[in-house]
Amino acid sequence: MKKIAVFTSGGDSPGMNACVRAVVRSAIYNGLEIYGIRRGYSGMIKGEIFKMESSTVSNIIQRGGTILKSARSKEFPTKEGRKQAYEQLQKHGIEGLIAIGGDGTFTGANIFYEEYGIPTIGAPGTIDNDLYGTDYTIGYDTAVNTAIYAIDKIRDTADSHERVFFVEVMGRDSGYIAIPCAVGGGAEIVMIPETKTTIEKVVDALKTGWSRSKTSFIVIVAEGDEEGSAVEIAAKVQKAIPEMDARVTILGHVQRGGAPTAADRMLASQLGIACVEGLLQGRACEMAGIMNSELVYTPFIDTITKTKSLNPNFGRMIDILSV
Amino acid sequence: MKKIAVFTSGGDSPGMNACVRAVVRSAIYNGLEIYGIRRGYSGMIKGEIFKMESSTVSNIIQRGGTILKSARSKEFPTKEGRKQAYEQLQKHGIEGLIAIGGDGTFTGANIFYEEYGIPTIGAPGTIDNDLYGTDYTIGYDTAVNTAIYAIDKIRDTADSHERVFFVEVMGRDSGYIAIPCAVGGGAEIVMIPETKTTIEKVVDALKTGWSRSKTSFIVIVAEGDEEGSAVEIAAKVQKAIPEMDARVTILGHVQRGGAPTAADRMLASQLGIACVEGLLQGRACEMAGIMNSELVYTPFIDTITKTKSLNPNFGRMIDILSV
Amino acid sequence: MKKIAVFTSGGDSPGMNACVRAVVRSAIYNGLEIYGIRRGYSGMIKGEIFKMESSTVSNIIQRGGTILKSARSKEFPTKEGRKQAYEQLQKHGIEGLIAIGGDGTFTGANIFYEEYGIPTIGAPGTIDNDLYGTDYTIGYDTAVNTAIYAIDKIRDTADSHERVFFVEVMGRDSGYIAIPCAVGGGAEIVMIPETKTTIEKVVDALKTGWSRSKTSFIVIVAEGDEEGSAVEIAAKVQKAIPEMDARVTILGHVQRGGAPTAADRMLASQLGIACVEGLLQGRACEMAGIMNSELVYTPFIDTITKTKSLNPNFGRMIDILSV
Amino acid sequence: MKKIAVFTSGGDSPGMNACVRAVVRSAIYNGLEIYGIRRGYSGMIKGEIFKMESSTVSNIIQRGGTILKSARSKEFPTKEGRKQAYEQLQKHGIEGLIAIGGDGTFTGANIFYEEYGIPTIGAPGTIDNDLYGTDYTIGYDTAVNTAIYAIDKIRDTADSHERVFFVEVMGRDSGYIAIPCAVGGGAEIVMIPETKTTIEKVVDALKTGWSRSKTSFIVIVAEGDEEGSAVEIAAKVQKAIPEMDARVTILGHVQRGGAPTAADRMLASQLGIACVEGLLQGRACEMAGIMNSELVYTPFIDTITKTKSLNPNFGRMIDILSV
Repeated sequence: MKKIAVFTSGGDSPGMNACVRAVVRSAIYNGLEIYGIRRGYSGMIKGEIFKMESSTVSNIIQRGGTILKSARSKEFPTKEGRKQAYEQLQKHGIEGLIAIGGDGTFTGANIFYEEYGIPTIGAPGTIDNDLYGTDYTIGYDTAVNTAIYAIDKIRDTADSHERVFFVEVMGRDSGYIAIPCAVGGGAEIVMIPETKTTIEKVVDALKTGWSRSKTSFIVIVAEGDEEGSAVEIAAKVQKAIPEMDARVTILGHVQRGGAPTAADRMLASQLGIACVEGLLQGRACEMAGIMNSELVYTPFIDTITKTKSLNPNFGRMIDILSV
Repeated sequence: MKKIAVFTSGGDSPGMNACVRAVVRSAIYNGLEIYGIRRGYSGMIKGEIFKMESSTVSNIIQRGGTILKSARSKEFPTKEGRKQAYEQLQKHGIEGLIAIGGDGTFTGANIFYEEYGIPTIGAPGTIDNDLYGTDYTIGYDTAVNTAIYAIDKIRDTADSHERVFFVEVMGRDSGYIAIPCAVGGGAEIVMIPETKTTIEKVVDALKTGWSRSKTSFIVIVAEGDEEGSAVEIAAKVQKAIPEMDARVTILGHVQRGGAPTAADRMLASQLGIACVEGLLQGRACEMAGIMNSELVYTPFIDTITKTKSLNPNFGRMIDILSV
Repeated sequence: MKKIAVFTSGGDSPGMNACVRAVVRSAIYNGLEIYGIRRGYSGMIKGEIFKMESSTVSNIIQRGGTILKSARSKEFPTKEGRKQAYEQLQKHGIEGLIAIGGDGTFTGANIFYEEYGIPTIGAPGTIDNDLYGTDYTIGYDTAVNTAIYAIDKIRDTADSHERVFFVEVMGRDSGYIAIPCAVGGGAEIVMIPETKTTIEKVVDALKTGWSRSKTSFIVIVAEGDEEGSAVEIAAKVQKAIPEMDARVTILGHVQRGGAPTAADRMLASQLGIACVEGLLQGRACEMAGIMNSELVYTPFIDTITKTKSLNPNFGRMIDILSV
Repeated sequence: MKKIAVFTSGGDSPGMNACVRAVVRSAIYNGLEIYGIRRGYSGMIKGEIFKMESSTVSNIIQRGGTILKSARSKEFPTKEGRKQAYEQLQKHGIEGLIAIGGDGTFTGANIFYEEYGIPTIGAPGTIDNDLYGTDYTIGYDTAVNTAIYAIDKIRDTADSHERVFFVEVMGRDSGYIAIPCAVGGGAEIVMIPETKTTIEKVVDALKTGWSRSKTSFIVIVAEGDEEGSAVEIAAKVQKAIPEMDARVTILGHVQRGGAPTAADRMLASQLGIACVEGLLQGRACEMAGIMNSELVYTPFIDTITKTKSLNPNFGRMIDILSV
């Protein structure tokens, strides 16, 4: 293997650039030529492929977003799209790929390998953390910290006005972001897709709190909670407690950006190196991850089909901490 | 004058605590007894009044929110409410008041002085900045910085995905927060209540940008813009440009909290001292402010009725900077 | 067991307050009375002991430092000192202790238990991370992030002026802080007590970098490096390369403070709960920690005598990443 | 005038990039060709001159440092050096210059104009703020905020350990940075070059504080104080109070970097536009600045020879606030 290429795909996450940097430098360190592909599979099809040097990735370790950009591709899921992608890679002599992204990205890479035999090693780049094969995904720690520091600001005003704040954080399918936001943000209640928390329970918790002279409350809502969005949940609770002075804040895309934390830079750097080394070891269709402090490679198919389960103790923790 | 009291009222703003600290220490420095009133006029009526010492305000200069809490009072606007407030102040022997808040707060203080002769000096504590009699209000600089650092994060993801982001910032009646967010956040378009920016103009600006190979855009929307909220404006633009890849973020209450900036701590400290000195000089119903680097006292009635106008050059600045 | 007490001891670290909060609420949740002891062993001897309620720890999860204060005690290492400490605890009926601190703290607790039979469970509160029995200590993640964000600022100026910066971070005995600072800060060289990096190697690395057209460099120095402090190392390198444009920055105590990160709040909360539960389970002289995502209790004697070893791969990582 | 060039010179400051961006876009807006010169006068002499486009300055408004780099030139102060610089500018057809820097930069520009008639307009880019002709220099607000947030962290640990911290901030010739750090950082004592504060006064202030049950203290030292560096001052005070538990922190180059604050981005943007407009108005050898909210142009010679005086009230403010 002489030439490989790296791309980012799916929703961007902080640390993607740190990972790209590690891939590039590790490739050069191992005597490979390294190319960047812009806009994920979409750019692969269009041939947006360029040679990268060590200096191409200078001074990017601390930057949010991705210098390689990301985009959805309508063509790659088609046979014709993948054929074009293959031809572009052939043109540049690229023999292996490194994909920084999530399960959608890995699904495509699997099919591509079956059809054309070009191996891909993946790094888990997504803030959501719901990817089997790694304890943490690249960007998750940053997203949680961004959310928690925002909740700190909200607590200032919640406390001053003795209000109930419903704060919506990211997490369409899981409470991975919501749980540490609730524990670390000092929230009284957390609502996540994995567990059923009824409106009645929220109402009870607020009433119990008031009876113990708590005057302000923070309710963390994962966007995918079964009771609805933070706006909807707040409205339901308001109906049950008309005198409640409530506000809603949706943290939104702010959680995606910003300079990555130390942990995300470290993880991204380790995994970027591991991706290159995985390709050199002859691996294909595997994701590099860290589980229990050990580097592991997990077949893409497992990262897509297996689910990582949330620690079930967290609900109890929040009950204890909000006594 | 031997005993005075301080309270915070209206929406909380970062720097209120720094101002309370300055009031307390300046009162003590001048040989006065100083009391705190919790929950603004509401607490004044209920007698939530307590003696403050220098140590009461230790280690609060950097905290967002207000240790004195804030609340709306339904009773103070009534004659009976003000009578009770007066009786409570009498009970504690309080001869002068310092109110940190906005125009609603000062309106109440004016009536109270007419009826009971208790003088109030005010400090402008609001993130909105739309208060005549001071170049900047306490909390404004912090709110703008909080918003801009959030926009920096949004730009990371906007740029990676080549999207259009509509970001709603605070400002029900004015573009004071939106303007520096647009200039400092590198936005292409700003929509504020003071000027008419049509949907057509937004559509044109986006199209011009794309034609010049700009790939991502940030549109800052003050919540009180005449075209509607960021959600509404984004929907209108989407209708005109169906292929636009757009997202909306509402920064919300995050802008109210957080550790105050250097400028807000300095301003809050100066004005807190000036409030105490104003009372000692025999002033009443005036707000302390800084205009052109000079300390000025402005009658409450002027802060309420006069309007401070936005620098009209900012629209042109944004046009130039987004070339 | 009905009454227990909590104290912080040794150098303060971010997350100590989050841990105190978890201890207090978990004690109350379990039906215990909970007392706070101010200034560690020193306050225990002097009887600075007070009842804590749930509200005593409201709104402290995000605060750096420790509301219980910390101090060195000259008396506790003496038999007489410990006798007085015991009498004070007796006076308040305290049957168990929770100590948040480091190995010095745990050494004292061991002796105290042998002499008076009062059990202590410890939580690892130190930024240094060099404590056996937990993957991470409370405060470590925050300290590393604080250092990295400071290094980001230094890189701005290093890069603009094409200088060599020698940045000293904490770590008298270990490179635990230096290593992630070097990886995450994008440094070219790291000097830590655990490995021998000669001045010649630094000189070579700089010359190699210049020859590859690198123009700015960051050298991270753990304060306990065998070649001396950052000031001394910079002077030695300067002697070998007189034309080098170098600057030294010592990050210092800034690394100890600040709002804890999400990870530190989570860890502190988990371990605070575990300390209370450990006491209730009848444990004594053990430290609660998290290893490979599992809660573990380690005898104090092991935390003091065993050493946790740095991942030996990090040196290679930095070589790769600075290609 | 058809072609102009921009460069940064002297110590870098946050906001220089925002200013470069405003210069470039304003030049393009006004139909000019705009060039960048790397490494200040040094690069001018060597011909490091390149054409800039609107996209060259995309996504830099938030970055610390300067993309144009900065360097000291030994040649420009010589006749021969300036001749070479002139020839390089001639080669590119550059008719006007915009210099972002401090008084050293402007001195050179003055001589260059006398000799070769190429006009320069300057923008005040320095964190020190001691430049006549503008209320604030670009970078000053950011530097002060960086210092204050660092002091907040130091206060956490000072307060926990009941220590005296001597914190050295930038300011070789003035207390411009030290003063707001002291007021906004809640310091008890400030030592600046402009005023004489003896060691005796520091000792007295500490003793008075202890007698009033203050337990922790922050002393802000401007690096150019007449009593010496923070290290020296701490040693002198320690000699007078041997039992004092003191620590020293030197904030150092961290103060130079980082994302600029809102105020610095706004100021940099306004002045960048004003520089281009100044050149187009036929101005030469003047610095654009903002005084009392008005744009003003001040002859370089005045910015170099006149001094801006510190508000004399600040000493009294700190006395009041540390009661």
